[in-house]
Amino acid sequence: MEHKKAMIIANGKPPAMDTIRPYLKQADTIIAADGGSLICKKLGITPDVILGDFDSIDDDLRKHFATSQFLHRSDQNYTDIQKALNYCRQQDIRSVTLFAVFGLRNDHTSGNLIIFESFDPDIELTAVDEYGVMSRLFPGQTALPFSPGTTVSLFSLRPVINLSLEGFEYPLTGQSFAPFFLGISNVIQSSGATVSFDQGRLLLYRLVNHSGENPSS
Amino acid sequence: MEHKKAMIIANGKPPAMDTIRPYLKQADTIIAADGGSLICKKLGITPDVILGDFDSIDDDLRKHFATSQFLHRSDQNYTDIQKALNYCRQQDIRSVTLFAVFGLRNDHTSGNLIIFESFDPDIELTAVDEYGVMSRLFPGQTALPFSPGTTVSLFSLRPVINLSLEGFEYPLTGQSFAPFFLGISNVIQSSGATVSFDQGRLLLYRLVNHSGENPSS
Repeated sequence: MEHKKAMIIANGKPPAMDTIRPYLKQADTIIAADGGSLICKKLGITPDVILGDFDSIDDDLRKHFATSQFLHRSDQNYTDIQKALNYCRQQDIRSVTLFAVFGLRNDHTSGNLIIFESFDPDIELTAVDEYGVMSRLFPGQTALPFSPGTTVSLFSLRPVINLSLEGFEYPLTGQSFAPFFLGISNVIQSSGATVSFDQGRLLLYRLVNHSGENPSS
Repeated sequence: MEHKKAMIIANGKPPAMDTIRPYLKQADTIIAADGGSLICKKLGITPDVILGDFDSIDDDLRKHFATSQFLHRSDQNYTDIQKALNYCRQQDIRSVTLFAVFGLRNDHTSGNLIIFESFDPDIELTAVDEYGVMSRLFPGQTALPFSPGTTVSLFSLRPVINLSLEGFEYPLTGQSFAPFFLGISNVIQSSGATVSFDQGRLLLYRLVNHSGENPSS
């Protein structure tokens, strides 16, 4: 049985609708995290589930999304993104793509980065913004299926032991980093590039030319 | 002798000029980190120093900023922000405010967050964006001079030991957190709120109503 896929739309800066559209078709469940429902309304997306403490949701929005399921989650110990991710875990959804989790208030951006990094490793998480796609790497060797020339940043929010990068413009062989690893704007040089490490967790951000523009390098 | 103050303008999303202007008057040195000089040009700011590998700087820009000092720093092991901060340290500048370090490419935002968190604790760092002001707290007790009603987020990129928050809507008493602490959108309830902890490093983000608008909570 194939595991279910979800997308979560939060309340930050969404990428253009052209970037979001292909994901809509693939998602089994579309979840708006509280104020993310306002973004859904703007973009013309109808979420299956709207979830949060509803502090930014009024009667008009409830009428607008009459077919959506409203799930009230009021626990102040969790952010809207955490509540949406916890819901995915309960539903046995194993692949989640997040939109509009970064880009406006920098405490939200930073908090969402921490949540993204630290959430259950059994769930495949991806975050898409206007400039690229973020994912997570875990200990062991990972092959990166990206074309030569792709700009890739790798960084960690915790110590990384014995990190090697092969097939990159700036390669690495068995180095350890504490408290953080920071490799911004590396470039893949050969197909079959790999990342391997023994302990820690890496964030991988692949620059994607969604719009045809080249964001500053 | 009072220590010198600098401002660094990077290449992310700058806040409105009305937000930047008061800082310009107080800065002894205005530094553009590489592509930040393009933002300076747009905003009508003349940097004292333009510093970086100059990959985004052309002859027109050099002519436009004929009075600025251009410092070529090509080391690929450091980002433009790190180079600018290292320059501040060399110049014995002890107070630095950063602009346009967050908000566009999320690998830059995340990398800058890590650099901001981990840079030399002897230098007072502040980062200003459209929605608020980020600063750093170190072990010990810190009094927060903000009015009751101020929304404040506190979070950490590393373990925090024995954290107490007093005078907040959501207080804490002597709790420890690993690997991260995440307290988004807390509210100061009384003047004289304090934060104290024994080990770690906290990032404090104070929501500021620069524009009169209320960004999503």
